Amino acid sequence: MAFPLPEPMRLALDAAARAGEAGEVPVGAVVRRGGEVVAVVANRMRELGDPTAHAEMEAIRAALARLGTGRLDGCDLWVTLEPCAMCAGAIAHARIDRLYYGAADEKGGAVAHGPRFFAQPTCHHRPEVYGGIGEAEAAGLLRRFFATRRA
Amino acid sequence: MAFPLPEPMRLALDAAARAGEAGEVPVGAVVRRGGEVVAVVANRMRELGDPTAHAEMEAIRAALARLGTGRLDGCDLWVTLEPCAMCAGAIAHARIDRLYYGAADEKGGAVAHGPRFFAQPTCHHRPEVYGGIGEAEAAGLLRRFFATRRA
Repeated sequence: MAFPLPEPMRLALDAAARAGEAGEVPVGAVVRRGGEVVAVVANRMRELGDPTAHAEMEAIRAALARLGTGRLDGCDLWVTLEPCAMCAGAIAHARIDRLYYGAADEKGGAVAHGPRFFAQPTCHHRPEVYGGIGEAEAAGLLRRFFATRRA
Repeated sequence: MAFPLPEPMRLALDAAARAGEAGEVPVGAVVRRGGEVVAVVANRMRELGDPTAHAEMEAIRAALARLGTGRLDGCDLWVTLEPCAMCAGAIAHARIDRLYYGAADEKGGAVAHGPRFFAQPTCHHRPEVYGGIGEAEAAGLLRRFFATRRA
């Protein structure tokens, strides 16, 4: 019997799938504080013409705008793909408590791959990190998206 | 005789100084394409209540909005402080050609310190990098800013 996915990862995966249908690389992110979902956002790089508009950056900005707290202490970030260096840095700047991610990103990931940002001695804030949640579904969305575009 | 500062670094330092007077950590950034300055921006973390609103992120977004090109190929970024991991990642995503920075950042820098992002095998785009331009003035702005706030 498969474990049911935690609700915020379900929301992030659904946001990723909708983004993929709109031609965006299908990655979704959710910010939650306590039990409350404060942002559900997907990749908006294509929509905004901005290669920095990753799901995590957009989710962090949306949560900051919604909460008005200037930081995201007490918040969790759920994202369907391992964050890159830019997003890992943003997670540290925003002081997010816990990071939950889905698929590993061997090429661009910066949490378990490449610069392993949170393990750097100079990293000023380290969230708790949990990877592989909803991994198969998250990776499948990406695989199908790129297969279609290469066809 | 001191070398005159290149014009874009002069603009970035002036933007940093103005930001410092407004209570922002004094860091400024300029995006230039060919000989044309397309964005002059400083740190807006305090103004926007957003710890990801570093000068480089804001300058990249402003340049993308102005140029409408979706990427910043052919552009240089001039910034008064060594970029952090978030900003280094954004520079790579935006495909900036050349990075010129002023003061070193031993604590938060990710170019010559910490994760040394552009030297990572997984880094997908490496700009040419030139550090130490206007270093003394850039570092002085930051030192005086923090000295005042600690007093």
